[in-house]
Amino acid sequence: MSIETRLQELNITLPETVNPAANYVRYQFTGNLLYISGTGPGTDHPTGKVGADVTVDQAYAAARACGLQILATAQEALGSLDRIVRTVKVLGMVNADPYFQKHPQVINGCSDLLVEVLGDKGRHTRSAVGMGSLPGGISVEIEVTFEFE
Amino acid sequence: MSIETRLQELNITLPETVNPAANYVRYQFTGNLLYISGTGPGTDHPTGKVGADVTVDQAYAAARACGLQILATAQEALGSLDRIVRTVKVLGMVNADPYFQKHPQVINGCSDLLVEVLGDKGRHTRSAVGMGSLPGGISVEIEVTFEFE
Amino acid sequence: MSIETRLQELNITLPETVNPAANYVRYQFTGNLLYISGTGPGTDHPTGKVGADVTVDQAYAAARACGLQILATAQEALGSLDRIVRTVKVLGMVNADPYFQKHPQVINGCSDLLVEVLGDKGRHTRSAVGMGSLPGGISVEIEVTFEFE
Repeated sequence: MSIETRLQELNITLPETVNPAANYVRYQFTGNLLYISGTGPGTDHPTGKVGADVTVDQAYAAARACGLQILATAQEALGSLDRIVRTVKVLGMVNADPYFQKHPQVINGCSDLLVEVLGDKGRHTRSAVGMGSLPGGISVEIEVTFEFE
Repeated sequence: MSIETRLQELNITLPETVNPAANYVRYQFTGNLLYISGTGPGTDHPTGKVGADVTVDQAYAAARACGLQILATAQEALGSLDRIVRTVKVLGMVNADPYFQKHPQVINGCSDLLVEVLGDKGRHTRSAVGMGSLPGGISVEIEVTFEFE
Repeated sequence: MSIETRLQELNITLPETVNPAANYVRYQFTGNLLYISGTGPGTDHPTGKVGADVTVDQAYAAARACGLQILATAQEALGSLDRIVRTVKVLGMVNADPYFQKHPQVINGCSDLLVEVLGDKGRHTRSAVGMGSLPGGISVEIEVTFEFE
């Protein structure tokens, strides 16, 4: 089954890709690796500290939104998500309260999406960690590296 | 000398590998690179903020424990640590007090171990930095990328 | 035009490279990738939290200084910056106040430099994020991965 068909079955529509507001690019190729820049959840998600201003459920939804934007970027970069061979690495950055502990539950919002959409090719190494702050006060920012053919 | 013999000489026994509690994998291959997920020190080390709740010496020991778990994971992934050609990169993340400054001394706990065990093949690029928070309140989390043959 | 000529036109002199004070190396090769360790701005820049102790303009200057040290390291590693094919990734880490939001403007100090000096080969993916703390209280630390031939 193509990834496009799977997206339809899952009733997922990928969002429009968003251009960076600063001096960087959204994706870069090297060899058969595709690097995606740190990606936020967009403007529909509450800003602030997870564990204080933002709940784990809200942050899970934000991490899923990061993942959707990352998939949209990968589709634009590769032409088709069917070219993805594996998901090498996810760096999940949570803008959290200093004593917050549930980063894995938050970043699962992205990880669950990648596995739903890409199956075993979506399984990845990961760090899910707490940042001191994030641009614009977003609750989550995520970086992904894919291998493609 | 094989790495296994060197481990015996150093009187180091690698720990059992621990499976992730969330939706990710401990290691991933791409080309001749082996990515290891962000790895904590296990449950035998005090949690909390380094520089406040946890001393530099305790955090050094925690970083060494992260390194042991990372070597155990690499051994499982590769069959033998002798296949490691070089250690490309270490990302050392310290759950530190906001004005903590001694991250390099902490992450040396892992770096010293890698060089003890792997010799020149254990030398690596590194960032040793302070996170706002870490999962479960662990004091240190470390990510490593190896090149293998 | 060679990068050396471009540096002269821009009136940029690369600094002396600085050796690490801890157990790591400044750069590492794997395949045709060059990894540069997390790099600070040197001792001429104010330490402390960006958004509280350090202004955005001061931190922009610090990020540019990180970039100059990174280019100096790449030149030493490669012999010539003309061997750089592309800039794969920048991880820009800002030692920021917990509610600081302008990380992209800070890290542009490095990104602008890379594009000035390397042209399109300096364009990169990026995460520009807030750390809880950084070694020695430096305001900015930056990691770069280049592809070379």
